[in-house]
Amino acid sequence: MDNSENKKTPIRNYGKFGLIEHITDKATPVNPGTYLGVGDDAAVIDAGERFILVSTDLLLEGIHFNLIYTPLKHLGYKAVIRAISDICAMNGIARQLLVALGISTRFTVEQIDELYEGVYLACKKYGVDLAGGDTTSSLTGLTIGVTAIGEAEKESLVKRDGAKPHDLICVTGNFGASYLGLQILERERKLFDKDRTFKPDLAGYEYIIERQLKPELPVQLSGQLKDMGITPTSMIDVSDGLASDLIHVCRLSGTGCRVFYDKIPIDSETRKAAEEFKLDPAIPALNGGEDYEILFTVPLEFAGKLKSIENVRMIGHMTSPEKGYFLVSNDGTEIELKAQGWEKG
Amino acid sequence: MDNSENKKTPIRNYGKFGLIEHITDKATPVNPGTYLGVGDDAAVIDAGERFILVSTDLLLEGIHFNLIYTPLKHLGYKAVIRAISDICAMNGIARQLLVALGISTRFTVEQIDELYEGVYLACKKYGVDLAGGDTTSSLTGLTIGVTAIGEAEKESLVKRDGAKPHDLICVTGNFGASYLGLQILERERKLFDKDRTFKPDLAGYEYIIERQLKPELPVQLSGQLKDMGITPTSMIDVSDGLASDLIHVCRLSGTGCRVFYDKIPIDSETRKAAEEFKLDPAIPALNGGEDYEILFTVPLEFAGKLKSIENVRMIGHMTSPEKGYFLVSNDGTEIELKAQGWEKG
Repeated sequence: MDNSENKKTPIRNYGKFGLIEHITDKATPVNPGTYLGVGDDAAVIDAGERFILVSTDLLLEGIHFNLIYTPLKHLGYKAVIRAISDICAMNGIARQLLVALGISTRFTVEQIDELYEGVYLACKKYGVDLAGGDTTSSLTGLTIGVTAIGEAEKESLVKRDGAKPHDLICVTGNFGASYLGLQILERERKLFDKDRTFKPDLAGYEYIIERQLKPELPVQLSGQLKDMGITPTSMIDVSDGLASDLIHVCRLSGTGCRVFYDKIPIDSETRKAAEEFKLDPAIPALNGGEDYEILFTVPLEFAGKLKSIENVRMIGHMTSPEKGYFLVSNDGTEIELKAQGWEKG
Repeated sequence: MDNSENKKTPIRNYGKFGLIEHITDKATPVNPGTYLGVGDDAAVIDAGERFILVSTDLLLEGIHFNLIYTPLKHLGYKAVIRAISDICAMNGIARQLLVALGISTRFTVEQIDELYEGVYLACKKYGVDLAGGDTTSSLTGLTIGVTAIGEAEKESLVKRDGAKPHDLICVTGNFGASYLGLQILERERKLFDKDRTFKPDLAGYEYIIERQLKPELPVQLSGQLKDMGITPTSMIDVSDGLASDLIHVCRLSGTGCRVFYDKIPIDSETRKAAEEFKLDPAIPALNGGEDYEILFTVPLEFAGKLKSIENVRMIGHMTSPEKGYFLVSNDGTEIELKAQGWEKG
């Protein structure tokens, strides 16, 4: 890129993943301890006996959360989930957490306490130690920087780039709930904005709202796979959307994929909310994001064993790369899957 | 803190360090690998053969940098320095770096390239691998989250809390330059704001402006101390100001201190600029911040050896805690040292 020509390329021309690839393509590790640098969920440090995994995330007010309907305690909880999700995504175990806060003077100490209550709650639930905290003043919104540190046995680390054609595509949990929870919260907020006496009624949406505000992680997966003697060929956490994250694995592994419409796990509450918004539930399930589930691939031979793992579903299979990325509908029609762009954050 | 009473305590009541202590005092590590959690420059993970150090920092537009006079390349460079400074501050060696960017759509790809040029330059100079990069959109200013990962031999790690009364207080480099560089830049900016045809003249201030915009780190110190067989009793990087950071070591070590006015190393350009702003140069040297030098303490017996280390000066000594924190002027008058408050960021 020649700056002297004063080129002005808008960031949207690259898309989020394109931009990350563009800025990190000059990263050439020189330290022998850098086992894995850019391109996966977390950086992997070879610490001799085992791998240390480190991942960092930014949560920005107005982009990742809206304080109008996000209780600070939930926000603190979700910040931890978001960070340690990247460690789970490499089949690792999260151990420590560092939190850096940018806070404007409009915040009170009691509010910061509330945020940290959520941080401590999530740390306790997932066995993670808060090992560093920093605060700085902010001129604008609330900014949260979260760094998760974890570990993995050398033989159990799973990367994004190891999937092979014919491997089964498996997922934990269900999809689209968090996105639709957010749509419900946004709908009620708009009504409240118009009429301040309006009382939001969230009854019947408890599950999808909880998935949006206080998500949990499928941390049991790592142990379940180990007990079954299954080593996945690739793994990623689904935070940008099932389609985006699957395509990410495909691109890094050099495969295509087929996902079957009727195999995508979707909760009944998600289906009901999708109907209200006149959406095919597969759309939020594929493109919604913030599911904090795990997607992984395994060789075909494990199909039988996988059936017995609770909470895991097989949704499709990898193909050779030239076959592209497609959703297969019930009548066999193939619809191309698309990755999300820059706008998603 | 009882939220039900709806208390509203302003953050400034606590001060920056008070707030950090307040929010992290519930952090009780449960993982055996968490060798050192909150309270030092970096979190320390026991990785078996050696320690892994991890530190994270937030840089926010308008608080930590002003893009009017900060070239993006310098900003990228300084972000790296800021992060790896925390690793040096524990006598460790920085190895990897993760960068998370929050960028508004007003930025172009060329500008992000420029920022990363600085990141790569600093990584190359300090032998650090860029091992992770993430980007997200931002509604407000530019936000940079930087996480540095380093390592230390188990016997060479130095914490903040080991200083003893009578230990010598030693520092690398000189102080106050970065703060005065910033004052010069601010002065010229204000003149430019009044009259857009004004051409800032920065001649004669090159050194102090470079200390502000493109600081370097005294990474050679760790090796020099090792060669001399000196193990410091405590160590910290001076980023919040010499007085603040020294008081921090004193509080954690349970000591008081005496610093001698005429021993504080101050560059001649810093003295000249201080004079222009009608400041005693000791004031920016003690309270300016962003010096990115190292402060450490050693037992008295090493006084002779220390004299031969280039770039290191002895500026005072630790005392018993009840003697407080004081600057000793040339005529023997004692002036109390103060830590900076919340405002400093």
